[in-house]
Amino acid sequence: MTTTYYAPPDHFQGNVVLLPKEEALHATKVLRQKVGDEIVVVDGKGGWHRVILKSLNRDKVLGEIIETVSEVGESKLDVTIGLALLKNANRFEVFLEKAVELGVTAIQPLLTHRTEIQKFKEDRFERILVAAMKQCGRSRLPLLHPPKKLSEVLQHQGINTFICHEQIEISKPLWAEKMQENAPIVILVGPEGGFTEEEMEIANGLNWRCASLGGRRLRAETAAIVAASMMLLHE
Amino acid sequence: MTTTYYAPPDHFQGNVVLLPKEEALHATKVLRQKVGDEIVVVDGKGGWHRVILKSLNRDKVLGEIIETVSEVGESKLDVTIGLALLKNANRFEVFLEKAVELGVTAIQPLLTHRTEIQKFKEDRFERILVAAMKQCGRSRLPLLHPPKKLSEVLQHQGINTFICHEQIEISKPLWAEKMQENAPIVILVGPEGGFTEEEMEIANGLNWRCASLGGRRLRAETAAIVAASMMLLHE
Repeated sequence: MTTTYYAPPDHFQGNVVLLPKEEALHATKVLRQKVGDEIVVVDGKGGWHRVILKSLNRDKVLGEIIETVSEVGESKLDVTIGLALLKNANRFEVFLEKAVELGVTAIQPLLTHRTEIQKFKEDRFERILVAAMKQCGRSRLPLLHPPKKLSEVLQHQGINTFICHEQIEISKPLWAEKMQENAPIVILVGPEGGFTEEEMEIANGLNWRCASLGGRRLRAETAAIVAASMMLLHE
Repeated sequence: MTTTYYAPPDHFQGNVVLLPKEEALHATKVLRQKVGDEIVVVDGKGGWHRVILKSLNRDKVLGEIIETVSEVGESKLDVTIGLALLKNANRFEVFLEKAVELGVTAIQPLLTHRTEIQKFKEDRFERILVAAMKQCGRSRLPLLHPPKKLSEVLQHQGINTFICHEQIEISKPLWAEKMQENAPIVILVGPEGGFTEEEMEIANGLNWRCASLGGRRLRAETAAIVAASMMLLHE
């Protein structure tokens, strides 16, 4: 299988691409690519390029684009998943990786009443997103927003904006909800202890739709992964 | 919230339950439970019991059952997910935890052509299942089968038996497939490199239904988690 690399748009000029340093080192030192090898380079903005390697030095690798396809591996939906930052960063990272594979457009880390504020490891999180994008065959890098207070996020309600909670008695499961076509989808998932009643009431008052994720108590990151999985039904 | 403990059926006698040593130590040393405290004890076989603690010594904890409910947190479906053992055991463990939360009945580790045989850490895997069962509010412990060759598993085809693969062109997504009610569901997912063409042909010849999981290349454990998530549609 042809190896996929990542180079952001400013690394492209005409039909030439220069791999970023980290990717160049991977190509030369780990995979020992040679002049004439064919690789794939995605630009994270929907561009997917077949490339022939033209010159390789330790950390400077140049290639010539021989074919470009747009939006490879991308969903037609615009899905943002908001997940509260978790005490266990590893669990948040599992969610990040799966969210990319499941085709989400953006990730909104949330600060909620029960969020115990954690360091937001932006660089590490971005690296996870890039690796997952390359691995799963996407051409767009999901947007990782900076953490934001739930109260601010709740101000931006729309037709397809959902807040998830455990009370299956009072609302339909997310997968039974209708989605309005062509409108962005936003789904919010709380931290380990869930959203508070007050947070749910505020969301309700602002016309966010409440959705359940079934009858068991899912871990926060499981809930977010299930929510993203269910978007496959609408792709 | 009342803490949930696990005691297998042979720890129950009449209306008295004796916590297993590990659970007893957790109750006395970590949570510092006291005589008169109310706890929940699940037996892993569908029994969910409200219990009042009657005596606590370091590793011997006895309680009296005051209420029993059956099948708490359980799905009406009988779902087995078969996932090839993975080179990265941590990824297999992520799947195990999520599978419990998503309500599966049994897990079948698979040995396939592209499986690089790994140690099957039965004790560790069982501990993950027990922890997830208590956490998500289930009362049945999913069955963890010993690893089995794909060729043997394929002998047991039924009405709802599926094998997942990446060729979305030639088959419907799993979520578009009809399920026959009251028949067990079995869904097989391959290792990092997928099933081989030969394995798919054998499955096909034995009337396993081929299902895709959408248009992106999912990691093995992501595919298995998505497959389990989709069973929520039929619960």
